[in-house]
Amino acid sequence: MKQLKTPKGTRDYTHPETETRRGAIDKIVAVFRKHGAVEIETPVLELRDLLLDRYGDDTKLIYNLEDQQGELCSLRYDLTVPFARLLGMKNIQKIKRFQIGKVYRRDQPAMTKGRHREFYQCDFDIAGSHPEMAADAECLAALCSVLDALGVGRYTVVVGHRLVLDGVLEVCNVPAGKKKTVLSSIDKIEKQGWECVLDELTREKGIDRSVASAIRTVMETGTGLCSVKDNQVLMENETIKKGVAQMERLFSYVDAFGRLGSVVFDIKLARGLDYYTGLIFEAVLEDKSVGSIAGGGRYDELVGQLSGKGPVPCVGFSVGIERIFAMLKEEGTENNTVAVIGVGKEEETLGWAMRVAALLWRRNIGARLDLGRRFLDQIQRCEREDTRVAVIVGKKETAEKTVLVKSVKEKDDRGRPVPEAEIVVAVEALLRTA
Amino acid sequence: MKQLKTPKGTRDYTHPETETRRGAIDKIVAVFRKHGAVEIETPVLELRDLLLDRYGDDTKLIYNLEDQQGELCSLRYDLTVPFARLLGMKNIQKIKRFQIGKVYRRDQPAMTKGRHREFYQCDFDIAGSHPEMAADAECLAALCSVLDALGVGRYTVVVGHRLVLDGVLEVCNVPAGKKKTVLSSIDKIEKQGWECVLDELTREKGIDRSVASAIRTVMETGTGLCSVKDNQVLMENETIKKGVAQMERLFSYVDAFGRLGSVVFDIKLARGLDYYTGLIFEAVLEDKSVGSIAGGGRYDELVGQLSGKGPVPCVGFSVGIERIFAMLKEEGTENNTVAVIGVGKEEETLGWAMRVAALLWRRNIGARLDLGRRFLDQIQRCEREDTRVAVIVGKKETAEKTVLVKSVKEKDDRGRPVPEAEIVVAVEALLRTA
Repeated sequence: MKQLKTPKGTRDYTHPETETRRGAIDKIVAVFRKHGAVEIETPVLELRDLLLDRYGDDTKLIYNLEDQQGELCSLRYDLTVPFARLLGMKNIQKIKRFQIGKVYRRDQPAMTKGRHREFYQCDFDIAGSHPEMAADAECLAALCSVLDALGVGRYTVVVGHRLVLDGVLEVCNVPAGKKKTVLSSIDKIEKQGWECVLDELTREKGIDRSVASAIRTVMETGTGLCSVKDNQVLMENETIKKGVAQMERLFSYVDAFGRLGSVVFDIKLARGLDYYTGLIFEAVLEDKSVGSIAGGGRYDELVGQLSGKGPVPCVGFSVGIERIFAMLKEEGTENNTVAVIGVGKEEETLGWAMRVAALLWRRNIGARLDLGRRFLDQIQRCEREDTRVAVIVGKKETAEKTVLVKSVKEKDDRGRPVPEAEIVVAVEALLRTA
Repeated sequence: MKQLKTPKGTRDYTHPETETRRGAIDKIVAVFRKHGAVEIETPVLELRDLLLDRYGDDTKLIYNLEDQQGELCSLRYDLTVPFARLLGMKNIQKIKRFQIGKVYRRDQPAMTKGRHREFYQCDFDIAGSHPEMAADAECLAALCSVLDALGVGRYTVVVGHRLVLDGVLEVCNVPAGKKKTVLSSIDKIEKQGWECVLDELTREKGIDRSVASAIRTVMETGTGLCSVKDNQVLMENETIKKGVAQMERLFSYVDAFGRLGSVVFDIKLARGLDYYTGLIFEAVLEDKSVGSIAGGGRYDELVGQLSGKGPVPCVGFSVGIERIFAMLKEEGTENNTVAVIGVGKEEETLGWAMRVAALLWRRNIGARLDLGRRFLDQIQRCEREDTRVAVIVGKKETAEKTVLVKSVKEKDDRGRPVPEAEIVVAVEALLRTA
């Protein structure tokens, strides 16, 4: 007999964790719907071809299915590429959608920090042509509303722009073929510090020391939008100028949405994924230990790349709830389920207890049947599970077609005898007061 | 460029299908909670060893993951074996739980009939020692409540008992080693008819013609519980007698739950899975074309087999919502989202429209921003999407910090000018009446 376990990087969730999660998902869905988004759901499996070459170095983290004499499939790595596939497949030009589902990454797990191999993503995306930066700003507003609704405490949404970064790489003379790999190093500055990143750039990636120093100088001159605007060398670059103009427009819209206090520009933010083309952003909590809990950006080329048809501009974000749960406490919810206790083993007594339970269910009152065990055990179970009200059926009650309705926490309360016609009213009254 | 598609037997779901599904799942969860069940969630991946030899012939339908230098994993085939694994792993002796999740079977798909390779199961199970047939009857009651809540129309829950079937096989002299394979043939009587099944039994499975005839005679004497009780030959068999006594007790409890009219005994019901040990059942709709939409039974040995520890008696069922959806019509839900329309391209106008949307969101009113396009296009979109109320912002309104609030379906209504402080009240009033 082998030891029973779940696959590495996965785990079981039991009550009350599942209740907290269901509550959180409900809150997220409510925010998404408030923005007029509709739900879509794509399969957990995708054809392997679709996923290859979409995630840069991380392609190695994709879970492949065995070739079982059919199509070659993989588990989805995110919800963004499947969404882009759906847009291309169905020729959808404009949609605001959300999707909540699990994604799979064969990453090194760190379960206590909420880094799993199977985890939920809650995605919100706006596809289609809109006035410049308007949909981008709405994504930031929706993300802030989600974080507020979840009650994660103080957070900052750090924003950057791929055009600004591209311009910086031009100004610093990074060779065209090395831009992607340099971006992925820049993305590590915050976590690993400059010494590490300079080392990686020059030794591993073969970037000239002068080029690497130039990048560092730009980044250290100041990472805010004003620093970039004040830097004449940068502002002479047309790509940077365009990016900065877009960011200024974005901030005027973020202000209109009332979110100026939560959004901060940082030139260092790069984000690894290949498909971003404009705005990029990440939400970080004041308690930095959980890392970023949400992220997204604009990906105007992805749909066209997949479908071979015209482009469909898109912008959106993912929220990772596992990381948030690693930090939040479980919510206590009041247990409104009544215990219906049948004492003894006689079929008649158990049958009468069942009739009473069915009566409560029909009136939408939660009723947990607890049959046949000793009365004391049953009451102790009520206490353990925070059941506040017990409806008790013994031999005498069965004969008389009555029940005893009792408040669990009142030790002395032996239960009030109630005839069948009054059970619902008596239980509802005690649920309100017990 | 390859054609974009989803893997065979899977599909995308878009609005309003996802809305119907989310509504259905909410209804199912409400019933499960009313019975005092708590939610659990297990991974979609399981170690492959756990799943092998649990599903008889259907083991070949399991999706295996590629060996990527780690553990050998498969996608779950059902939610029952993972639940039993969890009970064994965590040493849980007693729990009433529900789980809703996707399962995976490499079966021949029939998408229009709701037979997919990726589909939802909604499971409800009661584990632990309870008075005989009490938990079994509660499962039937919960199943009926779920089907009522979903509004599937007229249905029957067909019940059988493995002990009764085992006894019939004894009486008919089926060799011990052939019992499982004979059961799987009996399970096909309803669908394929006796000629097919007799042929399969005698030619393919090498059962004596006299034995096969004896089985047929028993089955055709009458499939109800009374027929079995009236059959003296059968009732002399101790196994059958025990099974019949349990069924009589079950029916007295089903009566107590008020579900006698929906539950019918049928000796022919066998159900394929190896792990059932007592009660087995299936829900069928009057519109038989969708086949069974839910099924379950008692599996007292499974947890012990997996964990090597003592047994944990279990009984439960799965509801397959895809098959129900294949039959139900989509529910129309009233669109309570307001369109906030910014006409023109000026940043100030769009910004004022955003401020108005943010104001509505803060008051929990759904607001879909529609910016920059021609007014007529925007109103036509409202009509297309059943948006009833539009809040319009143009140059004049931006300068005055007002909006126009308009009922979409009133063609002549040009919109009533409303100052900022009165927007929420005006919108709420129009949502009630428009």
